[in-house]
Amino acid sequence: ISIRGYTQMRYNGILDSSSYNDTYAYGDRSVGPRQNFFLRRARLIFSGDISDHLYLYTQFDLASSPSGTFSSSASNIGYAAPNFWGFYNQQIGSYNLNAGNFAQMRDAYADISIDDKKEFRFRVGQSKIPYGFTNMQSSQNRLTLDRPDAINTAQKDERDLGIFFYYTPEHMRHLFRDLVKNNLKGTGDYGMFAFGAYNGQGANRVELNKGVHLVARLTYPYVFANGQVVEASVQGYTGRFVPATSGIRPSLGMGTNWAGYIPNQFPWANSKGYNSPFATSSYLPFVNGPGYNNLYNNFNVANYNDTTVNFAAACVNGCNGLKDERVAVTGVIYPQPFGVFAEWNWGQGPSLDPYQFTIKSSKLNGGYVLVTYKYEDKDFGLGTFFPYVQWQQYRGGAKTETNAPVDRVNELEAGIEWQPLPEIELTAAYAHMNRTNLALAPYRQWQGDLLRMQLQWNY
Amino acid sequence: ISIRGYTQMRYNGILDSSSYNDTYAYGDRSVGPRQNFFLRRARLIFSGDISDHLYLYTQFDLASSPSGTFSSSASNIGYAAPNFWGFYNQQIGSYNLNAGNFAQMRDAYADISIDDKKEFRFRVGQSKIPYGFTNMQSSQNRLTLDRPDAINTAQKDERDLGIFFYYTPEHMRHLFRDLVKNNLKGTGDYGMFAFGAYNGQGANRVELNKGVHLVARLTYPYVFANGQVVEASVQGYTGRFVPATSGIRPSLGMGTNWAGYIPNQFPWANSKGYNSPFATSSYLPFVNGPGYNNLYNNFNVANYNDTTVNFAAACVNGCNGLKDERVAVTGVIYPQPFGVFAEWNWGQGPSLDPYQFTIKSSKLNGGYVLVTYKYEDKDFGLGTFFPYVQWQQYRGGAKTETNAPVDRVNELEAGIEWQPLPEIELTAAYAHMNRTNLALAPYRQWQGDLLRMQLQWNY
Amino acid sequence: ISIRGYTQMRYNGILDSSSYNDTYAYGDRSVGPRQNFFLRRARLIFSGDISDHLYLYTQFDLASSPSGTFSSSASNIGYAAPNFWGFYNQQIGSYNLNAGNFAQMRDAYADISIDDKKEFRFRVGQSKIPYGFTNMQSSQNRLTLDRPDAINTAQKDERDLGIFFYYTPEHMRHLFRDLVKNNLKGTGDYGMFAFGAYNGQGANRVELNKGVHLVARLTYPYVFANGQVVEASVQGYTGRFVPATSGIRPSLGMGTNWAGYIPNQFPWANSKGYNSPFATSSYLPFVNGPGYNNLYNNFNVANYNDTTVNFAAACVNGCNGLKDERVAVTGVIYPQPFGVFAEWNWGQGPSLDPYQFTIKSSKLNGGYVLVTYKYEDKDFGLGTFFPYVQWQQYRGGAKTETNAPVDRVNELEAGIEWQPLPEIELTAAYAHMNRTNLALAPYRQWQGDLLRMQLQWNY
Repeated sequence: ISIRGYTQMRYNGILDSSSYNDTYAYGDRSVGPRQNFFLRRARLIFSGDISDHLYLYTQFDLASSPSGTFSSSASNIGYAAPNFWGFYNQQIGSYNLNAGNFAQMRDAYADISIDDKKEFRFRVGQSKIPYGFTNMQSSQNRLTLDRPDAINTAQKDERDLGIFFYYTPEHMRHLFRDLVKNNLKGTGDYGMFAFGAYNGQGANRVELNKGVHLVARLTYPYVFANGQVVEASVQGYTGRFVPATSGIRPSLGMGTNWAGYIPNQFPWANSKGYNSPFATSSYLPFVNGPGYNNLYNNFNVANYNDTTVNFAAACVNGCNGLKDERVAVTGVIYPQPFGVFAEWNWGQGPSLDPYQFTIKSSKLNGGYVLVTYKYEDKDFGLGTFFPYVQWQQYRGGAKTETNAPVDRVNELEAGIEWQPLPEIELTAAYAHMNRTNLALAPYRQWQGDLLRMQLQWNY
Repeated sequence: ISIRGYTQMRYNGILDSSSYNDTYAYGDRSVGPRQNFFLRRARLIFSGDISDHLYLYTQFDLASSPSGTFSSSASNIGYAAPNFWGFYNQQIGSYNLNAGNFAQMRDAYADISIDDKKEFRFRVGQSKIPYGFTNMQSSQNRLTLDRPDAINTAQKDERDLGIFFYYTPEHMRHLFRDLVKNNLKGTGDYGMFAFGAYNGQGANRVELNKGVHLVARLTYPYVFANGQVVEASVQGYTGRFVPATSGIRPSLGMGTNWAGYIPNQFPWANSKGYNSPFATSSYLPFVNGPGYNNLYNNFNVANYNDTTVNFAAACVNGCNGLKDERVAVTGVIYPQPFGVFAEWNWGQGPSLDPYQFTIKSSKLNGGYVLVTYKYEDKDFGLGTFFPYVQWQQYRGGAKTETNAPVDRVNELEAGIEWQPLPEIELTAAYAHMNRTNLALAPYRQWQGDLLRMQLQWNY
Repeated sequence: ISIRGYTQMRYNGILDSSSYNDTYAYGDRSVGPRQNFFLRRARLIFSGDISDHLYLYTQFDLASSPSGTFSSSASNIGYAAPNFWGFYNQQIGSYNLNAGNFAQMRDAYADISIDDKKEFRFRVGQSKIPYGFTNMQSSQNRLTLDRPDAINTAQKDERDLGIFFYYTPEHMRHLFRDLVKNNLKGTGDYGMFAFGAYNGQGANRVELNKGVHLVARLTYPYVFANGQVVEASVQGYTGRFVPATSGIRPSLGMGTNWAGYIPNQFPWANSKGYNSPFATSSYLPFVNGPGYNNLYNNFNVANYNDTTVNFAAACVNGCNGLKDERVAVTGVIYPQPFGVFAEWNWGQGPSLDPYQFTIKSSKLNGGYVLVTYKYEDKDFGLGTFFPYVQWQQYRGGAKTETNAPVDRVNELEAGIEWQPLPEIELTAAYAHMNRTNLALAPYRQWQGDLLRMQLQWNY
């Protein structure tokens, strides 16, 4: 069993933002108000061939944080010191300093190969879902700092728990390996053909609806006579997803700059008295899907004098999950030296409706185009440079976030990855973001410019 | 320092259950409603001889989850969307998708041997308690998917923090090693004689009562002339345990199908006004044991005008803990090829009383018989097969669970473990369970049939 | 990449305490009521030279616990069973047994050396702050069980995330290495000159104020002709720190035995009616520093009919942080065989005011003197002994604790570290402590005597 890994340290400078406190990016928690240095990933990987038929891969991340830790959001908002003690400006909220950075599983899988040439494999355990080139490509090799939302929202942390079958002809296995080894930004071997069944709620998440997601992928890399490699893929998945919910105060304008608007005549604008359903100001969004209607099965309620006692955690609606399915196409020209990576996907998935009152399955689509050029400096020994430009767009629900808010993204990023040594990479990028703040209702849109930097060391 | 480990992936199919939402097993969280694939264990072990006198063993599990994560129970029950928006069936509760699977300590101990033959050892740190063959046997080697409740409820996660003394004659040490190495399902070396002192609240739990638990064990493995090995053991422990509590609404029928019954004439059936002790509907069970009666020692209450301020976390009753002691007998015929594993224990421990109002030390007993046959297929090279049948029973408190509810278990399991390769094990079992749902008041009984499957890879 | 580490198991016997329930020490959670065996540290370190220019150091601790676990404090205080069921003494509070001991990052850094002799290095990632000899010295090598508060309160867990520059002449690098290797209790190489910029909120804590802390240090070790080594250092840091807050009931006497006093005539002594700011009994301490006054920027409040909705987590006051700066001097005579370690620091930092109503930057100072003698037993082969005496004092805020209470410490500790083998260390010490209970308002002072023991195994 060999040990390897990599660590990414970041700094995101907010040059300009239409709403500083709403600054947010799906893939990087340090794109936000008052942030500074940030450890995005600190990985340790234990892997190796255990026998001719078993290959082990276990990876964890030391820069992960359990819920309740590492939060830069204020709590107790409004619960502040009395203002007549001479403090002119009230204080907004309090912060905790609960420590994060705990080791969390990323991968824990075994490749069990059936034949001696290892062309046919079953991959069992938690591993990456074979959906989307950018998802399968390791963050260690990716040019841009974050994966594009359009593809990345398909699967939380790109991984899930299940059983996958991969078929890769032997010569193609060597090609997939070389595309990574030769610094051409490949994905590694996820099969020429892949098929899998998995829980579907995301990596390290508990299953909630018993149903599996099914995924399939077909890819074909082609090597031209001059050595140039191109790859085309098609992939899709289908299943049902149970979104997480928490109480919000419904308002209009989600995904726009005027999010939070509550017209006076709306019934939830004001309390209507103690017995009104609007007496409190926040509601759980209603997950509008089928459920297990068996709260009281095997149970004669009439024998008991208080039906308000909840005898078991049941779910009458929604916990069968909402339809969640996508199909994506991928086209790649590997950077020898000029490279293009492009993907687009369409489908439907859980999404909060514009009234912020129900979550249902809605249409989505989005993708990206990334253009790069690989320049190896032989004259001065400065190493390898990858200048790049990426444009991405997405419009659809962010099922992996609480209440599955609508995510509207349009982003342009231009940057350069510099590898002065094989084990050190420095990336600097300028990004113009137009994004929804998915972290906090009413889910406002913000626009801004960032100077992003990352130092990565490989080991 | 060498690295090894194993991972277990499971699937539990509920064929039939008298109460689907109460489906629960003490040893496997994926025996429950709406579950699917599950990583039960993902272990990494760092061990080795550091010197002639120090042997190190550090193990952690990547499939563990801190409190507040990985919960499949609904929260906010009843706190749903208003039902007049056209949704006929209310929704029951909300779910979170807080990520789990963090690396948690299992073992962190050192064996410090006094003599050169390593017959006399002190084991310091967190390690397994030498109580019960099934507890000491590694899950990597166990046939059944879970340990029997009767023995496993003695100690949360089988481990605790303390100091243990082990004496093993040299030839017996080799025998214990071979019983594992030769795939005979042994425990490894926990001494011919063992004695230890430990905190007693369970692995990775904080100490609450200052008192130690004491444990002692004597085992004797005997090798017949034909090589057949049998082993007999006696073991016992004593101490005081502080149970965890949380508010419940007292009701009758715990551990039966009619759990939750609240007669009309009972005082806690209805509120009796604002000043009534029954004004709220749930109470903390009273831990009926001695305490540290010193809330106000060194403290003159009269000097202060508000005694409702709590100056320190004190405990007037219960926090000395409740009497917790057991004795167990073990008999083992190692599978050469026919094997029998049997254990039974008796004792007393913390247990919620039938009125669900106090927790006190009550009698308990239970055990199991496991019969197996080791079949090594030489003709077709299919590997090794262990068909088995296990019957287990337990009646007593589950001290390690919140409020220490009564656990009534009667379970029959028939299965087969198949080792096609030494590093891969596939287990399939049919189980008829009659168990108490210990996770949720009012602690109902349920009966059901399960098809259980596990894939394990060793590395 | 090589693997090493160490584990520390402790037992703290409280011989005498002026207030048993207030027993508390800044550096050891098992100095407290009703504690027993405790794993203080269980470390695994993955380190090594990846290339000529990159040295990797990744360390995690298996004995760390996320918030919400491993708490020995009672919750639900006062929320007990009705007392008329025949239980004479009410019960105070309930306990949980949420499991702790998860793997948490300590270090994740890379040393990137610029020159071939590795005299000039950049250290990036999370690493120790070069401030205070006792902070930089590994706990594996330290004589006393805990670091002195005066220096240790400068930085939570001694580490933070940032970029550091170190310059060490080559011969001095060898000297720093030998001072550790030869069991002389050195720090290792933190540069003859060091300069760094880091987040400043503490190891594994999220950044809250965007500002960096700056630190600089100059040290000079001198080797006399007879081989005796002495070292003198000066170091300082400056920055702004955002303290964590939670609601407390203000009272007088913090850091004394009469803490908790609330005079009758004080406005917060009693409720003054529903609309009074004193209607509730606890308040958030006001962080009296500058803030980001932009709750409503880019936002026309008039368009919305409810301004109580909080659209983003903003902070009007305090979240720029409070001035936090110190300077320290260090003098060391390495134990060949007689040794002295002494440090003192002065500065200002966040501190709760005596009325427990605001947190502001206040003056602080403190330090310690540690005297030891290294005795290597050659006659009987008993190993190495380090008898020692340490006196420490501190008066100032404990910025790393919730509400930054005043910490008043005067402590005398006499002990002996015994190394019977290089890989095993046993420490026993008698300590007379005079300390503030920083864990719980009203932050009482306690005095007491402890018998402290630690067993450490290195690997």
